Amino acid sequence: MNFDKIIDRRGTNSTKWDMMGARSIGVPDEDGLAMWIADMDFEAPDFLQEATQGLIDKANYGYFIGEDGMKEQVAWWMQTRHGWAVDPATMFSTFGLGNGIGICLQALTQPEDEVIIFTPVYHEFTAKIRKSGRGLKESPLVIRDGVYHMDLEALEASMTGRESLLIFCSPHNPAGRIWTPDEMRALVEFCARHDLILLSDDIHHDLTYPGQTYTPLPVAAPEVAERLVMLTSASKTFNIAGSRLGTISIPGEELRNRFAAMLNALDVKPNLLGLVLTEAAYSESGAVWLDQLRPYLAENARIFLDGMAEIPGVTPMPMQSTYLTWMDFTNTGMEMDEVVRRVRQDARIAPSIGADFGTGGENFLRFNIGTPRARIVEAVDRLQQAFSDLQ
Amino acid sequence: MNFDKIIDRRGTNSTKWDMMGARSIGVPDEDGLAMWIADMDFEAPDFLQEATQGLIDKANYGYFIGEDGMKEQVAWWMQTRHGWAVDPATMFSTFGLGNGIGICLQALTQPEDEVIIFTPVYHEFTAKIRKSGRGLKESPLVIRDGVYHMDLEALEASMTGRESLLIFCSPHNPAGRIWTPDEMRALVEFCARHDLILLSDDIHHDLTYPGQTYTPLPVAAPEVAERLVMLTSASKTFNIAGSRLGTISIPGEELRNRFAAMLNALDVKPNLLGLVLTEAAYSESGAVWLDQLRPYLAENARIFLDGMAEIPGVTPMPMQSTYLTWMDFTNTGMEMDEVVRRVRQDARIAPSIGADFGTGGENFLRFNIGTPRARIVEAVDRLQQAFSDLQ
Repeated sequence: MNFDKIIDRRGTNSTKWDMMGARSIGVPDEDGLAMWIADMDFEAPDFLQEATQGLIDKANYGYFIGEDGMKEQVAWWMQTRHGWAVDPATMFSTFGLGNGIGICLQALTQPEDEVIIFTPVYHEFTAKIRKSGRGLKESPLVIRDGVYHMDLEALEASMTGRESLLIFCSPHNPAGRIWTPDEMRALVEFCARHDLILLSDDIHHDLTYPGQTYTPLPVAAPEVAERLVMLTSASKTFNIAGSRLGTISIPGEELRNRFAAMLNALDVKPNLLGLVLTEAAYSESGAVWLDQLRPYLAENARIFLDGMAEIPGVTPMPMQSTYLTWMDFTNTGMEMDEVVRRVRQDARIAPSIGADFGTGGENFLRFNIGTPRARIVEAVDRLQQAFSDLQ
Repeated sequence: MNFDKIIDRRGTNSTKWDMMGARSIGVPDEDGLAMWIADMDFEAPDFLQEATQGLIDKANYGYFIGEDGMKEQVAWWMQTRHGWAVDPATMFSTFGLGNGIGICLQALTQPEDEVIIFTPVYHEFTAKIRKSGRGLKESPLVIRDGVYHMDLEALEASMTGRESLLIFCSPHNPAGRIWTPDEMRALVEFCARHDLILLSDDIHHDLTYPGQTYTPLPVAAPEVAERLVMLTSASKTFNIAGSRLGTISIPGEELRNRFAAMLNALDVKPNLLGLVLTEAAYSESGAVWLDQLRPYLAENARIFLDGMAEIPGVTPMPMQSTYLTWMDFTNTGMEMDEVVRRVRQDARIAPSIGADFGTGGENFLRFNIGTPRARIVEAVDRLQQAFSDLQ
């Protein structure tokens, strides 16, 4: 696989590349570098292209079967890659994980409930909680030894009894922190003490850097089963977010029945493209490709973090996984409006805005490095230029 | 377009052709004829194949834009084909219309409400109402001059005040009845009198036979706007149900806002395949293809209805649209269990079971004639044989 190959996504209806010029972002589409929304710019691998070609060659897009076979591939993948023995009978398909979170909030919480998230975190958690009319409770992460840690003591002190569900992000987005089994066990113990449903969004599960190990929550803490909702997907690993398919695994019968009732009422079933791509992705070929991708992303991250660290006052957070880097501009002493202006207008780069990730993200920007190496080098160059007056 | 061309869908993960042997149906997959679930067996036309090939050739399945452009094509189609000026700003995409109905029930009704349907009708209406925990109120259609009519007088007499929404099917499934503008105006007047939301599932809108005219509800009765939810899709017309994309149009602001809030909470957005296929379908090429398909389906229906009418006691309901024929076996004097046994086991044909369509459907079977002509001839032959002892 040649990850260095540039495919020009401009003009292909790509959100990432064709929406940079939109008013709220303001980076010119023509020579802007898209480093925001979380997809990658690599050419789809052959095993995915063969699968979609096979779909077309059938020349009929009517009703289809195959969800069970796909779920078996998901289970095979989780077992072989992550040591997680998940029963396909406990799985559901949703239209991507955003939809999965939305259904969970409808099915498993009440309007008066509060939902806990550890900020800064994937901004859609907040959006989904708000749109569902549930209460949002932020538990800010604390930085220790340069990386994020949960502050369960502070959270404990703030509990009111209205909290019913906690959304965890593992590995963490942004910054790709991989939680340790001990941290996860402490979290599970916390959730048990407060009888919280634990919804774990593990969408970045496969994108670990060489030498790093991601542990699924039910492997680290099997006792979580009765309160666990696991969200996984092939969409980040294989860059197939457009196919909109996520997998929700719920080992506990009571939660599973509540979720299933809502899923059935809403008639949520996979679409053909999502089914075909997910099944093709979770394969031996997919594993080989992924194990070439992981060191490539790690090296992209190293180059980008090293380059950014050369800008005085910029502190990149060390990463263990994902292609979503997280840069702290606090010590530049610059207002964030000015930082953003320089990044967008001077460097002509579209990042994600840290404040959108909740409390603690205000002085950060997130840069997506899931792109050919040449663009990473170019981005470092542009950003160093844009801040070249800093000493 | 060569609609006579047989493409063998067996072994392609086709629900229709690969699930006939399932226990509850019991027709052998090998030489069974699939005439149940509502998709067609024709080869996908070139303009759809080119669109999906274009999707593959981009070699990237990441986040995408284009929903607005697709909605404009929907609006263009409705205006040019049906004289309905629908504003794209009032449209939403759902994961097919089953999902659309499910979201409507969640967003626009309360658990204690009752939902009215005119039976016999598409069986999923009942399923969705039950799965949503809403009350089901059947208003049986009456047969006059051999075809179905709504009995609004009987419905009026039965109203309790708990009814909040009515699901209409236009054209009607089964039997392809096209409601007249006068009938629709009477229905709208009824809904206004009882302050009912009127959800109109018009998924078969395009499949009219030559000389027949389908009129959208808002064209027949513009005063319906404030209480109308229109469900349309390219999925039946162009046989793309597997792509799972439906369009919900809600002209009234209050209903639209309630629906939008639920849609956003559930994060319902189109998938790539559905977007690409729908946009390609609603085109000049799509119109040309459709106008070749309509007379072909009409002739299939003529042959099948004429052939079935030769079986003593079988009464086919006259059709004006769709590929879903509706056969009354009452006058055979035979128990329906025996009718079904003969159809499945002797004729080796999988129909849809009339009782599933609600009150009034008990003595009927639905046969899907959206298939190459040779299969229609074969089906008539097998069915005539299976009932050859009737005099």
